[in-house]
Amino acid sequence: MADQGHQEHINPWGSKSWTYLSSLRQQSPLIQCITNLVSMDLMANTLLAAGASPAMVHSILEIPDFTPHTQAVLVNVGTLTSDWLPAMKAAAGVANRLGKPWVLDPAAVGASGFRLKACLELIELKPSVIRGNGSEIISLSMASIGSTKGADSLHESSDAVDAAKSLAKSSGCIVAISGSVDFVTDGERVVGVRNGVPMMQKITASGCAVTALIAAFVALDPTNAFEATAAAFSVFGLAGEIGMGMANGPASLRMHLIDSLHGLDQDTVLRRVNITNFS
Amino acid sequence: MADQGHQEHINPWGSKSWTYLSSLRQQSPLIQCITNLVSMDLMANTLLAAGASPAMVHSILEIPDFTPHTQAVLVNVGTLTSDWLPAMKAAAGVANRLGKPWVLDPAAVGASGFRLKACLELIELKPSVIRGNGSEIISLSMASIGSTKGADSLHESSDAVDAAKSLAKSSGCIVAISGSVDFVTDGERVVGVRNGVPMMQKITASGCAVTALIAAFVALDPTNAFEATAAAFSVFGLAGEIGMGMANGPASLRMHLIDSLHGLDQDTVLRRVNITNFS
Amino acid sequence: MADQGHQEHINPWGSKSWTYLSSLRQQSPLIQCITNLVSMDLMANTLLAAGASPAMVHSILEIPDFTPHTQAVLVNVGTLTSDWLPAMKAAAGVANRLGKPWVLDPAAVGASGFRLKACLELIELKPSVIRGNGSEIISLSMASIGSTKGADSLHESSDAVDAAKSLAKSSGCIVAISGSVDFVTDGERVVGVRNGVPMMQKITASGCAVTALIAAFVALDPTNAFEATAAAFSVFGLAGEIGMGMANGPASLRMHLIDSLHGLDQDTVLRRVNITNFS
Repeated sequence: MADQGHQEHINPWGSKSWTYLSSLRQQSPLIQCITNLVSMDLMANTLLAAGASPAMVHSILEIPDFTPHTQAVLVNVGTLTSDWLPAMKAAAGVANRLGKPWVLDPAAVGASGFRLKACLELIELKPSVIRGNGSEIISLSMASIGSTKGADSLHESSDAVDAAKSLAKSSGCIVAISGSVDFVTDGERVVGVRNGVPMMQKITASGCAVTALIAAFVALDPTNAFEATAAAFSVFGLAGEIGMGMANGPASLRMHLIDSLHGLDQDTVLRRVNITNFS
Repeated sequence: MADQGHQEHINPWGSKSWTYLSSLRQQSPLIQCITNLVSMDLMANTLLAAGASPAMVHSILEIPDFTPHTQAVLVNVGTLTSDWLPAMKAAAGVANRLGKPWVLDPAAVGASGFRLKACLELIELKPSVIRGNGSEIISLSMASIGSTKGADSLHESSDAVDAAKSLAKSSGCIVAISGSVDFVTDGERVVGVRNGVPMMQKITASGCAVTALIAAFVALDPTNAFEATAAAFSVFGLAGEIGMGMANGPASLRMHLIDSLHGLDQDTVLRRVNITNFS
Repeated sequence: MADQGHQEHINPWGSKSWTYLSSLRQQSPLIQCITNLVSMDLMANTLLAAGASPAMVHSILEIPDFTPHTQAVLVNVGTLTSDWLPAMKAAAGVANRLGKPWVLDPAAVGASGFRLKACLELIELKPSVIRGNGSEIISLSMASIGSTKGADSLHESSDAVDAAKSLAKSSGCIVAISGSVDFVTDGERVVGVRNGVPMMQKITASGCAVTALIAAFVALDPTNAFEATAAAFSVFGLAGEIGMGMANGPASLRMHLIDSLHGLDQDTVLRRVNITNFS
């Protein structure tokens, strides 16, 4: 990654990350999740373990009553069908009009023209953050399909940094790439997050879950979605690292990750958050 | 809870609860669950672990063939959309006409007018039991929305006892409130169930799961839904207590709770069921 | 099972099974799953743990773009509704036209006339394999409903062998019956798989998950679906056996099964695969 320039450890990220996590536990913001069918259980449990209050509400009939009471909205297109899209747009639209943050997970966006078009339309509704894997961010940036393998990435996250910067500039969103290193960019600044373990990719919907945690952190600090996103990546990855110390495979990792997220303490966060600025 | 009057331990509840659980294991009634998308996995595994036979069948086209062969129906509106409501009403209607018990979980009923109206219409179809948290029971009793925070309660269960009694009287249903103490009422009698641990609230769909267990217990004894409901609360909470002894957080608690429900033995049930009459 | 004739251990099955599993880990085929709502989490995690790449894509709008890029398709009717059936048929149709294998799981086919008709129509689209429990295979073979109890079987798998052979002959599919012994037949040959433990039946969607693993193995070797199916049964059952050594109940078995599937090594597979030919 020589092309990413000079790296330095920024210790303040540990204390920032802890501030987000402890605030989440205190404030327990209500996060509306319109998400794919595979991810619902893990996503809700991730939010609960971290301290947020998840609400899987996706009927378009409920959005006028419900969405105004939420602190953030998460939209994930992982099992998109045409009957779900209007509610996604409606919730994103309410969030946008009321100045609430909302976060887009363009899961498997390269799988079809239908899904790509839906994501591009959703981006018009100004998400605060877009979080995908390398292939997803490249697909979105190029507005083209095929550079994906279902929900799995064919690209290293580092291969997608330029695409992410370009997408961030064109959309005005924070763009986040998950991978062996997670990257966050606002189009100018880029940070890399080096928490997490490879086996997390063997847990279905772990990417969806971290996007939900991003939404929860952004809910606490909507004017600084860049830092909230990096902190969420780091906290989730750190829970994975701790969980990995007790795991014998992907299913026990999933369990220990959630337990560890629930139990993360200040000292561990301050010591082990690993976020690096790229100038 | 001084206003709830004289409390006394009723030892017979231990043996009643064991009778329900052991009968469930022997008879394995077929329980049709039309439930929210978040809860399906935990609910089915809860019913299987307890000894029942779950069936997540929700197509309206299947209800005439299928519902008559079930022993009870569970309806949960947690991720209600307009296309699911007719099947819920149809299944409840079949149960009602055939004299089978059915149980309503008004999950997050205060989230929207749509959801409230749906629940009120479902109550017209005479569920045997309605199980909610404090906020949900208050919303139903007042037929008003807003006193909720998504799926989480803003009220202690004890705050909702009067609302529950009122709802039980007006609807003719057993009304059950889950919380730090669970309450069950038929409008006159009230019992409190003091099994369970606080961390169960950090497991998504744990409330949905106990409602399914209520449906399974009521299936065994439709004419005594009051006692069956209290016993189900107690058995589920006791499994949580035992699980908590092995848990390091909400995800391992979930696992140990299900394992403990599967392994619960007579001696433990007789000793630790904690149900109290309120005169 | 005296009527099933002479049994002998065929050692080559161990090495065949290992070849499938190690190839899966190397090739990681993309498996499109159009499956029931209860099974999605376990199915995706099973495929990931085994080495495949799952994609839960079920919108009919995405099938023309997406399905041609998959290596196999899995269709499971466990929570069938009329709006999902066209996508199931479309995906099966694409697979059929392009010569890709697809696998049908007729979950709870006896539950209703609607479900039976849907399965019979799907069989017209020439699945490579049909995997059900004893009751499901009997229902399909007789084209009649009622011989089922929701998703649970009322029949021993051995009771369904003749029905399976008949269905295999009439449909041209490999037919697989799961149970205390799993059977696989092409209408002439029959093998029995004696891996697995009874408690796997207490894990919801474990049958759905093994069907997905069958799809993944068949994707590696479409011209030999018979052997791929037997190997998948055996590998999944063996993971269950190893998991059972660490489990305290059905929820911990589920976790240890997935971990064990991820960690299965050559020596264990060679020694413990237990597949028997019936002449």
